[in-house]
Amino acid sequence: MNTLIQPGDNPDITAERKKGTFDVRKMAAFIYGGTENLQRRKEILDFVESREEFRDPIPPEFLTREDRVSNNARKAVAMTDLAEAIDGSDFFGEGIYYQNLIMGRDLHGMSLHYAMFFPTIQNQSDDEQLDEWLPLVVSRAIIGTYAQTELGHGTNLQKLETTATYDAATKEFVLNSPKITAAKWWPGGLGKTASHAIVMAQLYTQGKCHGPHPFFVQLRDLNTHMPMKGVRLGDIGPKLGINGSDNGFLLFDQYRIPRKNMFMRFSKVLEDGTYVAPKHSKLGFGAMVFVRSIMIKDQSMQLAAAATIAVRYSSVRRQGEPVPGKGEVQILDYQTQQYRLMPQVARAYAFMFAAYQTRDLYLKLTENLSTGNTELLPEIHIISSGLKSLVSWETAQGIEQCRLGCGGHGYSHASGLPEIYAYAVGGCTYEGENLVMLLQVARALVKVAEAVKQGNAKLAALTEYLGRRGNVKSSFSNINNAVPRELIHDFEHVAREQLFKAYHQLKKHQQSMSAEDAWNRCSVELAKASRLHVKLYLMKVFFQKIEEISDSTLSEPLNQLAQLYALDLISAAGHEFLRNGFYTDVQLDAVRDGIYVLLEKLRPNALALVDSFDLSDRELHSVLGRRDGHVYENMIKWAQQSQLNQQEVLPTFEKYFKPMMLNARAHI
Amino acid sequence: MNTLIQPGDNPDITAERKKGTFDVRKMAAFIYGGTENLQRRKEILDFVESREEFRDPIPPEFLTREDRVSNNARKAVAMTDLAEAIDGSDFFGEGIYYQNLIMGRDLHGMSLHYAMFFPTIQNQSDDEQLDEWLPLVVSRAIIGTYAQTELGHGTNLQKLETTATYDAATKEFVLNSPKITAAKWWPGGLGKTASHAIVMAQLYTQGKCHGPHPFFVQLRDLNTHMPMKGVRLGDIGPKLGINGSDNGFLLFDQYRIPRKNMFMRFSKVLEDGTYVAPKHSKLGFGAMVFVRSIMIKDQSMQLAAAATIAVRYSSVRRQGEPVPGKGEVQILDYQTQQYRLMPQVARAYAFMFAAYQTRDLYLKLTENLSTGNTELLPEIHIISSGLKSLVSWETAQGIEQCRLGCGGHGYSHASGLPEIYAYAVGGCTYEGENLVMLLQVARALVKVAEAVKQGNAKLAALTEYLGRRGNVKSSFSNINNAVPRELIHDFEHVAREQLFKAYHQLKKHQQSMSAEDAWNRCSVELAKASRLHVKLYLMKVFFQKIEEISDSTLSEPLNQLAQLYALDLISAAGHEFLRNGFYTDVQLDAVRDGIYVLLEKLRPNALALVDSFDLSDRELHSVLGRRDGHVYENMIKWAQQSQLNQQEVLPTFEKYFKPMMLNARAHI
Repeated sequence: MNTLIQPGDNPDITAERKKGTFDVRKMAAFIYGGTENLQRRKEILDFVESREEFRDPIPPEFLTREDRVSNNARKAVAMTDLAEAIDGSDFFGEGIYYQNLIMGRDLHGMSLHYAMFFPTIQNQSDDEQLDEWLPLVVSRAIIGTYAQTELGHGTNLQKLETTATYDAATKEFVLNSPKITAAKWWPGGLGKTASHAIVMAQLYTQGKCHGPHPFFVQLRDLNTHMPMKGVRLGDIGPKLGINGSDNGFLLFDQYRIPRKNMFMRFSKVLEDGTYVAPKHSKLGFGAMVFVRSIMIKDQSMQLAAAATIAVRYSSVRRQGEPVPGKGEVQILDYQTQQYRLMPQVARAYAFMFAAYQTRDLYLKLTENLSTGNTELLPEIHIISSGLKSLVSWETAQGIEQCRLGCGGHGYSHASGLPEIYAYAVGGCTYEGENLVMLLQVARALVKVAEAVKQGNAKLAALTEYLGRRGNVKSSFSNINNAVPRELIHDFEHVAREQLFKAYHQLKKHQQSMSAEDAWNRCSVELAKASRLHVKLYLMKVFFQKIEEISDSTLSEPLNQLAQLYALDLISAAGHEFLRNGFYTDVQLDAVRDGIYVLLEKLRPNALALVDSFDLSDRELHSVLGRRDGHVYENMIKWAQQSQLNQQEVLPTFEKYFKPMMLNARAHI
Repeated sequence: MNTLIQPGDNPDITAERKKGTFDVRKMAAFIYGGTENLQRRKEILDFVESREEFRDPIPPEFLTREDRVSNNARKAVAMTDLAEAIDGSDFFGEGIYYQNLIMGRDLHGMSLHYAMFFPTIQNQSDDEQLDEWLPLVVSRAIIGTYAQTELGHGTNLQKLETTATYDAATKEFVLNSPKITAAKWWPGGLGKTASHAIVMAQLYTQGKCHGPHPFFVQLRDLNTHMPMKGVRLGDIGPKLGINGSDNGFLLFDQYRIPRKNMFMRFSKVLEDGTYVAPKHSKLGFGAMVFVRSIMIKDQSMQLAAAATIAVRYSSVRRQGEPVPGKGEVQILDYQTQQYRLMPQVARAYAFMFAAYQTRDLYLKLTENLSTGNTELLPEIHIISSGLKSLVSWETAQGIEQCRLGCGGHGYSHASGLPEIYAYAVGGCTYEGENLVMLLQVARALVKVAEAVKQGNAKLAALTEYLGRRGNVKSSFSNINNAVPRELIHDFEHVAREQLFKAYHQLKKHQQSMSAEDAWNRCSVELAKASRLHVKLYLMKVFFQKIEEISDSTLSEPLNQLAQLYALDLISAAGHEFLRNGFYTDVQLDAVRDGIYVLLEKLRPNALALVDSFDLSDRELHSVLGRRDGHVYENMIKWAQQSQLNQQEVLPTFEKYFKPMMLNARAHI
């Protein structure tokens, strides 16, 4: 049933694989949307593995930062040279996979060239600009990045300080950074790689500010790659992770660019300096939803990788001998270890399913928008912002649980887990700071609550439950006879109660203070309401997804996992469930007991469930998570690559410790 | 009132400091146990700052691993050369401080020489051995480490695989690593620095195994520093943090050492191979408590540093304009930000007070043990294991909250926070894996529960509440009239209920399965009971500590902070408080409301409370956390030190991207 079993594997991992009750290939096909997709994963993997260009000289964790940047540059060029190997139109599926296989948990100098520079040029250029710039971008004659965030300004774009002032005399814009806080800060590839950038700057013309607008800006000379006069830029230094990317800073000193370098598809500045406002709104919203679906998928894959590593290692790691003389047990047999890891496995599935669902929503939205139908916009806005926030945070937390579950070795880069964490946790901040996102969700939910209160709510599918009333007592008795509908009903109740609780607090505060102060005073409770709304969505999607399966060998363990996911969510919100006697103590005890029962039921399938993520050793990049379970001998092999092991006696020893020791011996 | 205010500081941080209602010097003196101690901190800081030897060529975050190891070697020699600057007998106070000032968040090749090698030689040598070895250690003629943990064995020492077999013919022990899993793994300084190690190995003599015993083992030649024949060792590779330390691995191939190299103070092996068992138990317990008090202090200081950085940065960072036209607000004004940070400030205080308390317990224990009084042992065992676990975990979580609260810049090493996290989170695993620790605590608590049930409990102060009965309904109404006694009473109730709940489950399971299986089946609930016990202790210590203060300008804000700490703990355990109607919904709502009220009350003192930690810029090592609040200009200065900025155009660009771009241009 488990096709990952091979002769010569660690017997513990083989025995563990044999315990699984379902075919991991079938489960993997279900996760990735069909056997064809699974086959494509294999083909892309084989292609990447076959090419010398994609081989790292030594594992990147042993490289200095300079060497990492250099190695990534080398691979980025090869990756784009050979991009025909994948279906470029399927970035959600093939694109991320191909890039992750090659880059690991890192980015490279051209990451934003493709992720932001290229699409912005497509969307914001007028026809003439497109004719001029697109060939340069596609052919890689120039390398671009996207410079928006400033040293002093991230979340609040309206306050960006970089200015672009139109000079009608020369028909140029003058770019300037009036203060140090106006320095562009963070854009990937900006430090040392990019020759060009899209720069967001406050547009001034005829003495008036028209707010932030994008400009096409050359940063470096195309022959010498030296910064243009008036441009100062560099790398922003080492970060928690993603150190193969040269995130950069950028300052302008009265730097002039032609008028035609303002993106002219929507707004315009005429030769005489007249500002022409956009006729249409920018409709950039769809792209944002797409980016978020990709983020959610990427995050879920990181959690899946961490869970795979931890479950595999927990299958081969033996420690502690509860019954003396009976030998040490696999650490996966400890309830505390199962409780640490299995909810992460459940989350990885839940998040992956939600990522596919968000992609589908995006496709539906795009279709609707093309016919002018904007009905789906508000609820997709809510759920994509909320998912971005919740998934990135729970992914980061989950990875750390997996890392800690690997004991001391989880602290070593041999485990891969420090890098997975460092890479994934960035997602809590970029593309919208998580708490800011949750409060945006809350704004939208409060509007729904308001409409419900006024009796004029027209609710879409995702918020429909807010207009309903459910039972005032839960009927849950125990997990053995619980049905998804019941668990969802109960969670709806709690999510709804929390929203209206926060809503009423807000209304109450508004009577005695300004709207802004009232909002601030309720913001922790509002954020909590947002989280419950998103968790409910994740739970629903998980159960819905299982309904698509006809093969009970797959649906049974997945259903157990979804139940674990649901009970874990309920338990974490236990106090809200007890409110007003919706749950009794006995029911909440049954939830806790249900978790332990499910952990036991899932135990035989723990490894099969993570094997089903179909993550190759290349992707996992972890000695602890190796398919074959041969951890320990490979730990030593891995360690031998340490920079410090290249010489038996380090020069630094000769220089510092040896004189000290000799001196001491001379005086004893 | 705030002596940190200086002319030329960022006006926002000065204004913020002026809001404080108390004298930060007085608070600092209270934290560190008197003005003399505060004065000593200043003297030690001035000394370290004055010495060229302790200066880093560039900030360590820009160094390669080799250079970090080398830089730390240089500083370690100087640090020990100049150790007369501090009172070496006060490691808890002066020792950690001195070392942290010099090493930052890193260790060095001699860390274990002092932390483990030296004390073990003192405690385990017989007189003859002491005469021979101690001068070598003190004079630094040799460098030692402590090699216990193996690749396949951490928690369960009884299963260590390294063997020391006595050969009566040659009067030698033969050290051997029979399998790869027997490789010693992790000891600091073992990789490249140590010339000697204390090696824990299974002692075999006359065909019989006597369990793990310590041996004094030379690893490297004192002249060439090359490994001795039969010894294979090296660095274990890069880790999440602490990369200036050469943690190492070690394998023996039938390596012979003289009989006299077995530590002979307690057990002995005579010339003919006769094993003499120890007359006295090893009494190593006191040392463990001391090490833990130091760990807890170190952890609390890391959390204090993270909180200081985040609160200071939140005072100068402005983002978002709730009221249009009124300007951007300090992010510390957002309730969500206060809710993120202030509980971390409260924890840092709570943990620091607990560290001092643990040190005092250790001193009392040592005194008692000297007169043969072992009464305190069990409860000190419980609380020191429990604190180690809870404090390290909540410190790590708290640091991450501080880091995320700094937005994008928290991800940069400029913030110092990635390093603080990486350094501190190791504490969850070393010196006893956290979950294993919590289950040890649970073992002891279950014994207490058993005794209480049987009516023969003789309870010590820390567990006394387990034998009491409190009210079955809480009298808490709101935070304005809550007294510490009431909050403690309520938390005692919940901690007691959880223990007995888990205890009864255990008894029930024991009727249908083996004791080991029953234990495992209850272990998540048992660990929860342990956590509540420790949290109760922390809450009690915090309130007790405040009673020592006569100055109400200090006790008032500290009391608010302790209340916040308590309500945060209660809120997190909300579901347990509601159980059996101990709290009503209204009471629990009052807890949540109390948190928001306290956040507002504490707002003016947020900065003063962290300034009181008396952490110098050197110690914080953070651009975001600078005393003067001049963050942004120093971000750029910091970034200029990036390895990538040492050349305007990187060779890697010339090598990879340039040919690609030229080729593209040639074909357009």
